[in-house]
Amino acid sequence: MRSAPPGEGIVIGIDPGVARTGYGVLRRCDPYPTPLAFGCIETPSNHRPARRLLEIYEKISLLLDEYAPECLAMEQLFFSRNVTSAMHVSEARGVVLLAAEQRGIPVTEYTPNQVKLAVTGSGRADKHQVQEMMRRLLRLQELPRPDDAADGLAIALCHINMVR
Amino acid sequence: MRSAPPGEGIVIGIDPGVARTGYGVLRRCDPYPTPLAFGCIETPSNHRPARRLLEIYEKISLLLDEYAPECLAMEQLFFSRNVTSAMHVSEARGVVLLAAEQRGIPVTEYTPNQVKLAVTGSGRADKHQVQEMMRRLLRLQELPRPDDAADGLAIALCHINMVR
Repeated sequence: MRSAPPGEGIVIGIDPGVARTGYGVLRRCDPYPTPLAFGCIETPSNHRPARRLLEIYEKISLLLDEYAPECLAMEQLFFSRNVTSAMHVSEARGVVLLAAEQRGIPVTEYTPNQVKLAVTGSGRADKHQVQEMMRRLLRLQELPRPDDAADGLAIALCHINMVR
Repeated sequence: MRSAPPGEGIVIGIDPGVARTGYGVLRRCDPYPTPLAFGCIETPSNHRPARRLLEIYEKISLLLDEYAPECLAMEQLFFSRNVTSAMHVSEARGVVLLAAEQRGIPVTEYTPNQVKLAVTGSGRADKHQVQEMMRRLLRLQELPRPDDAADGLAIALCHINMVR
């Protein structure tokens, strides 16, 4: 693990899930934020639920230690038709919130609509549109993949825009 | 913190919640299990959500280190009419599952009906009945209070009965 660089102006965006947790780390810069890292924490479906939560917690903890973000922005879960799925996502949210709190990193939450609106101008944008806008706004050579990683970046960017 | 006693035959039952997480620690003995500890982890409502999860995680971690249970039995959350509340309970469940997995303690889950049926003979028992049955079955001088603590004991006892 690298020693933590100064985290001023660094924001991590998290799109939590048991199978895939997307993340994106941005540094606030003018005129455009700089992407420092993005990706997706995947946990195998044949691992027991508690082990998958531990895997998410450990990888998020490593990211928080490495980038020392000044804020963690997370997608908020609203009413879901699939309650069982919402409850499992909430367990993953719980371990992400814990990792942030253990390091004194404040958490801000945004609804999926707020995130899409902030980065595409429409609350109804599809996953490909979010990927394409992240490529453009962050001057990436290629689309950020998988879409969970693009969502992580979008949540971080949404937070930077809201604070600005 | 005391050093961990041998955990053979020790079961911890957890009734998770953000405001109140009930717990009960039992040692399997014939003819009746011995209560080692029970109580309720309360978190103040004016603490931010992530801090409340940290408080639950730290207190559960202390209990697991102190009693080194061979199993953690937890109440399972099924469909709830109040989805927002179910999602917050799930966040608390997430940090309990994490604390167990970090120590290699297996988790078994029981539905509220299974627990009530196991300890009162009826899946529809009310909270007072569960408290009264815990007092009798565990030879306690008084009702275990609050009811969350009695629920924690009931979940541990349910597990001991199921394994037997």
